[in-house]
Amino acid sequence: MNKIEHIGIAVKDLEVSNTLFASLFGKPHYKVEEVPSEGVKTSFFKTGPNKIELLQATNPTSSIAKFIAKKGEGIHHIAFAVTDIKAEISRLKKEGFTVLNETPKKGADNKWVAFLHPKTTNGVLIELCQEITASEK
Amino acid sequence: MNKIEHIGIAVKDLEVSNTLFASLFGKPHYKVEEVPSEGVKTSFFKTGPNKIELLQATNPTSSIAKFIAKKGEGIHHIAFAVTDIKAEISRLKKEGFTVLNETPKKGADNKWVAFLHPKTTNGVLIELCQEITASEK
Repeated sequence: MNKIEHIGIAVKDLEVSNTLFASLFGKPHYKVEEVPSEGVKTSFFKTGPNKIELLQATNPTSSIAKFIAKKGEGIHHIAFAVTDIKAEISRLKKEGFTVLNETPKKGADNKWVAFLHPKTTNGVLIELCQEITASEK
Repeated sequence: MNKIEHIGIAVKDLEVSNTLFASLFGKPHYKVEEVPSEGVKTSFFKTGPNKIELLQATNPTSSIAKFIAKKGEGIHHIAFAVTDIKAEISRLKKEGFTVLNETPKKGADNKWVAFLHPKTTNGVLIELCQEITASEK
């Protein structure tokens, strides 16, 4: 794990939260991206080497909609940047972690992503992410 | 805000979680520190420019004990490194955020810290932290 790539925060209204986090960071988000396969619309803020990803559900079956219904707005996941996501998935499985998707899938912000189930990580939803290279697109 | 300094994770048993996160990161924690004023025992892991802080309550009135009783183990707060914590507190107050302690207090890992109330930050408990210099000790 190379660093915290981003922290994902579940929000009800992306526009309202974009204004709020722009006040917090003293600068606006640098991009907005919809990920239809996950049922989310996202925005990204930079803070030094790290990012904050705000996530708003775009349909009621989205995992973000379910999260907010259960827990309210707040921190949804931590994403760690990895160099070789397939090797990390294999290593973490051997260590006893439950990998939710053993085959990396395409996430927001040009990344291959995989998630670890919170039940094996102290209640923390952990995402592994690796940049998608030009040849993989 | 210069970067994510650390993410604080509330845990029930620091020793058990130290083993778990050592498996996750492929390396052990680099320090353990008790903060009696906050009723917590902490451990720290490095991941590139960022840290993960595990927090175990040392008494039942600790905010970590209350958090776990209410929400279970999981992410407790995000800490951002700032250069001038007093200036940031002043700026964020003007922006409408509720600062829980307007005078920075000494936290773990040699830091001046201040917290923003989650009700003004989308349900996210945010910590500002600034390194304590030798002359301030």
